Amino acid sequence: MRPLPQPARESLTLPPVLHALGDPVRLELVRRAWARPESSCSALADGLNVALSTLSNHFRILREAGLISMTVDGRHRRIRPRADDLGDRFPGLIEPILRLSAAESVNSDPR
Amino acid sequence: MRPLPQPARESLTLPPVLHALGDPVRLELVRRAWARPESSCSALADGLNVALSTLSNHFRILREAGLISMTVDGRHRRIRPRADDLGDRFPGLIEPILRLSAAESVNSDPR
Repeated sequence: MRPLPQPARESLTLPPVLHALGDPVRLELVRRAWARPESSCSALADGLNVALSTLSNHFRILREAGLISMTVDGRHRRIRPRADDLGDRFPGLIEPILRLSAAESVNSDPR
Repeated sequence: MRPLPQPARESLTLPPVLHALGDPVRLELVRRAWARPESSCSALADGLNVALSTLSNHFRILREAGLISMTVDGRHRRIRPRADDLGDRFPGLIEPILRLSAAESVNSDPR
């Protein structure tokens, strides 16, 4: 299991986090990652009509903003939400966003 | 006083709002607009080192996302935060963002 590089908790800043969340596909991926920690990239993207290269870019943006951790595990990439880091740096931020995005989601029953 | 076009309350969606907030200059403009309703564009941008064309683009993105209303008043453009519309569509969203952005702001004493 090899972790991909990510920003340290103390260097997280608000604009990149909001930017990362400001895309419908990324917002849905975050919602699913929070609902199902330790999922693979492909499991989280299930049913989203997005090209692999685009998806890979979305996960990179989420990782670089500090929203998720990614580890390479053989042929799989595992996604872990950085819930503790975000809660520490930005208390009260992610909960309303997840709640509101669930209400807007076209697929509110992620597998 | 001529209002510029803006999305109706019921058509506001979360990703464009988060995208609009996901830029340090726009986040600062929103923070100032909420602190000082009915300001002019130039008053809100005071002290920010941003080209006029860039600034105009930022205000457009904020308006099209539904965060602010703009009216043309002679040579001035007045900015009004759409606090009621956002509170109605996205309850509990803007308050933590404003609070956290104030803590990160390089200029936490807007004039």
